[in-house]
Amino acid sequence: MSGDDGRPLGRLSVVGVGPAGPEWLTPEVAARLEAATDLVGYGPYLERIAGAHHRVHASDNREELARATHALDMAAEGRDVAVVSGGDPGVFAMAAAIFEALEGAPAGRWEDVEVDVAPGVSAMQAAAARLGAPLGNDFCVISLSDNLKPWSLIQRRVRLAAEADFAMAFYNPISRSRPWQLGEALGIVREVQGPDTLVVLATAVGRGEREDVQISTLGEVDPAAANMSTLVIVGATSTRVLERPSGRRHVYTPRYVEAAQ
Amino acid sequence: MSGDDGRPLGRLSVVGVGPAGPEWLTPEVAARLEAATDLVGYGPYLERIAGAHHRVHASDNREELARATHALDMAAEGRDVAVVSGGDPGVFAMAAAIFEALEGAPAGRWEDVEVDVAPGVSAMQAAAARLGAPLGNDFCVISLSDNLKPWSLIQRRVRLAAEADFAMAFYNPISRSRPWQLGEALGIVREVQGPDTLVVLATAVGRGEREDVQISTLGEVDPAAANMSTLVIVGATSTRVLERPSGRRHVYTPRYVEAAQ
Repeated sequence: MSGDDGRPLGRLSVVGVGPAGPEWLTPEVAARLEAATDLVGYGPYLERIAGAHHRVHASDNREELARATHALDMAAEGRDVAVVSGGDPGVFAMAAAIFEALEGAPAGRWEDVEVDVAPGVSAMQAAAARLGAPLGNDFCVISLSDNLKPWSLIQRRVRLAAEADFAMAFYNPISRSRPWQLGEALGIVREVQGPDTLVVLATAVGRGEREDVQISTLGEVDPAAANMSTLVIVGATSTRVLERPSGRRHVYTPRYVEAAQ
Repeated sequence: MSGDDGRPLGRLSVVGVGPAGPEWLTPEVAARLEAATDLVGYGPYLERIAGAHHRVHASDNREELARATHALDMAAEGRDVAVVSGGDPGVFAMAAAIFEALEGAPAGRWEDVEVDVAPGVSAMQAAAARLGAPLGNDFCVISLSDNLKPWSLIQRRVRLAAEADFAMAFYNPISRSRPWQLGEALGIVREVQGPDTLVVLATAVGRGEREDVQISTLGEVDPAAANMSTLVIVGATSTRVLERPSGRRHVYTPRYVEAAQ
């Protein structure tokens, strides 16, 4: 492609390939990947979807802004670049990083690059579907990582969300350098909600034998059972377990809330 | 299928077909629809996906519990039933209604029916992708309908979400019988956040010429411009517009929040 003045017109697609496997990858994303000349993203995601015609640019999962810059540079050279996120690129993933890079760019840099975002199934949705419908009423979505925002803000958001009796989905609950944050966040909820409030640790949902879903409560959960692949769901007051005759346990939040609450 | 004692074993899949068009329908959902003998859901969703081999059971969009009962009855007869939601069935949709019906059932009813949920792209994700990344940091998801919960609880949740400086996605913002709720909810946010806070009315995203995305502010938005097909996004303090040299306007929320905030 080229513009009226002969300069190349690049394209950058920010796509979400879902939290695991091809069954959650949308046709829109499949088409954008097929059209792309270059794939940019975290190595394990790219391995799942790279084709023979792709140039693959794998990077570490923490270098989002450097990755965004590299992707925009290639698009400005006229390549058709797909920036790949697991889950949904709009939920704690690469879409915001691309716009941060664009906004911080010197005037004129990347000005011919067109950016499009294609949504995907996010980890909280895959976890929720496995369980039943724990996010079936109002809910909040919070990243517990304080790499890019102050921990005091995260504390405040968790506390207000508990006071509002939202169900919650926690992303980035724990890492090697942040082993204490999930426990502290659950402790904040515990100051507001009862010990029987449901907590689910949903790890690697959709990834076969690695998948592990633990249904627990605020009073009993062990935060150390979570890892970087865990999506944490904290129930609202009305969230409950439904055990079926088969023994299977579902977790869901009804659509209704009684006026008495 | 039949069990050891010869009784039919039914299957019920609750599936999300995305907010529009086939490009957001996952392969998992496509496979479940293909396997299903019976489709249950809101008529316009079913028209999008019914095949020649399906028995189609269309109903009005407000009769979720009656629809759930009908679907479970058919599954108990040994049919392979797909209950179809637009968007994600776990977000203000049919998954919770199915579990409500199961929990309220007399002992023994539907006991052999196995229920599975398949996630889909939700309306907020399609809207967010069209805009850029407005939900790129912590956010809340709230249904403004008080059909099933008290309006006082919705008011409280909106106020606490504003105090927490979450971005927000409002589902069911308005209907013929509830023309005032979106305006009142935005008014609550306005008591906490400044008039420059971004508000987006994203109507019928993905539905061709019907799609209409309006970027406005708390100070200027006209709630009457929303309808039943509108997904409303209210920005956090840090949510901003990025206008590209092409004239295209993106809305995004950075991943970072300054400590000063």
